[in-house]
Amino acid sequence: MRFEITTLGTGAALPARGRYPSAQLLNVHDRLYLVDCGEGTQERLRQAEVNFGRIAVIFISHMHGDHYLGLMGLLSSMHLLGRQEELIVFGPPELKEVIDVQLRASQTYLRYPLHIRPLAHASGITVFSNDHITVSTLALKHRVPTTGFVFREKPVPRKLLMEKIHLIPHFARNAVKLGEDLLLLDGTIIPNKELTTEPPLPRSYAYCSDTAYAPELIEHIRGVDLLYHEATFTEELAARAKETMHSTAKQAATLARDAQVGRLLLGHFSSRYKSPTVLLNEALPVFENTLLASEGSTFTIPQRSPFGKWSMFAS
Amino acid sequence: MRFEITTLGTGAALPARGRYPSAQLLNVHDRLYLVDCGEGTQERLRQAEVNFGRIAVIFISHMHGDHYLGLMGLLSSMHLLGRQEELIVFGPPELKEVIDVQLRASQTYLRYPLHIRPLAHASGITVFSNDHITVSTLALKHRVPTTGFVFREKPVPRKLLMEKIHLIPHFARNAVKLGEDLLLLDGTIIPNKELTTEPPLPRSYAYCSDTAYAPELIEHIRGVDLLYHEATFTEELAARAKETMHSTAKQAATLARDAQVGRLLLGHFSSRYKSPTVLLNEALPVFENTLLASEGSTFTIPQRSPFGKWSMFAS
Repeated sequence: MRFEITTLGTGAALPARGRYPSAQLLNVHDRLYLVDCGEGTQERLRQAEVNFGRIAVIFISHMHGDHYLGLMGLLSSMHLLGRQEELIVFGPPELKEVIDVQLRASQTYLRYPLHIRPLAHASGITVFSNDHITVSTLALKHRVPTTGFVFREKPVPRKLLMEKIHLIPHFARNAVKLGEDLLLLDGTIIPNKELTTEPPLPRSYAYCSDTAYAPELIEHIRGVDLLYHEATFTEELAARAKETMHSTAKQAATLARDAQVGRLLLGHFSSRYKSPTVLLNEALPVFENTLLASEGSTFTIPQRSPFGKWSMFAS
Repeated sequence: MRFEITTLGTGAALPARGRYPSAQLLNVHDRLYLVDCGEGTQERLRQAEVNFGRIAVIFISHMHGDHYLGLMGLLSSMHLLGRQEELIVFGPPELKEVIDVQLRASQTYLRYPLHIRPLAHASGITVFSNDHITVSTLALKHRVPTTGFVFREKPVPRKLLMEKIHLIPHFARNAVKLGEDLLLLDGTIIPNKELTTEPPLPRSYAYCSDTAYAPELIEHIRGVDLLYHEATFTEELAARAKETMHSTAKQAATLARDAQVGRLLLGHFSSRYKSPTVLLNEALPVFENTLLASEGSTFTIPQRSPFGKWSMFAS
């Protein structure tokens, strides 16, 4: 049961050699979700050998080009590749007009149903849910209305103990998996914890694309396994960060620490930094469990038992 | 005095590994012109180490994504890089709305004057002219209104013969360079051809991005030094070419032959062809002087005297 984040681009607004604009691919239980879609994302996806057709939902955080300019090309390629399944795109209210005007100009009539759903600029609204995840919003603080997202895995059922399974009638198994005690025909009650083990903890991921330091987000991201947070600048440029409504790496780390998240993943590095190590070095003293995103890297949040140790694999 | 064409992308609508969508950079006398601007063009320009700020005019042939989707990102990067010089963009009438709606959505107020000029769908209209070139239109035959372009170098003055230069008073030199005979104070007339050599021939380049076979273009492209023509399909797929209003390589070669151009440059290869050699092989029997475009290659049209031999350098 996968829960993986692949960072396709870690650059900021201006192109930098070897860095691409924002886009992330989430794989949760082998369902694919795209989060932001900067220019060239379809090429990045092809390099990562991702079948575009498997992407079911796309989330666009805001209308700055480095977060959405690859969307039109991706929608068009899905069309040319014969997609028929519906596609849901969440984004700012302006997104629909931007796409519609281009579909009209190119006289493209998509072969698949495209639903562009406007996002209100508010935190804690559940905008998407399926059998595997729920997705809720974060009102980020940026120059244009910008929405972050929290992806939460749905709780999975408890696991039946193999050595007790013969005691449980078939019709009662789902109830036991959901935590109920077992009442036998003779009136005996077997407590659930003698029949099952704790299920793995639901995993969670929060995406904060472009934002000034926003401690009001803490209540919405507290304890997530992984927090992606932009880290455009070093402390030396804190004034520039404030002016452009971006964050420093230290501010990202402060938020991660105060929200007690499992790991912090930094991205959206200004093109002035040839290497993002300088940003990592400013975050680590504040929050030790900090990682740098890089082009095409995959970060896996492993399943863990309620008593297990936290670990994460990056590849 | 350069006249160079760099092909930044040779792919068609669908992405293909190692091929990028249409974009060409023209360098005429060290002035830069961009012709079409598919997704990722700004990255291609950066790879080619081109300073975006030097691009003065952009020509967009039509509103299919593989020819214009990189424009918004490029305009935005020019803004972020502090451009102040005006930029002229020629394109279909729909282009202005597509750009305007995105500037509004991103709340971007460009620091430089941007003039988006609509193109009428007709051949032979001179839309741009400066000291170095004139640019006129070609009404291509495609599913949406599509315009090709002919770039013609302006004639340069005749060259004064060094050994005769002492005979020519300063005030008369420009007239002699323009072809006039020299009248001396004593009434002697020295014929121009004893004082000057023929100037190099004006060079010319025609760009036919996406088009069905269109022999009505011949009168407008006759004798150009270099013709770029799309060659999306092989003859085996001639029916598909007709249906999608594209050309086969053989049709491109037929047009080049009938228009008696110097060289033919093929591009816009369907992603189904792993190598475009199959397209070259179909063109060569019809028109020998055919070249394949490739990502980042530069084709130089050298200066030549009216009696010189035609040659071309590709790098």
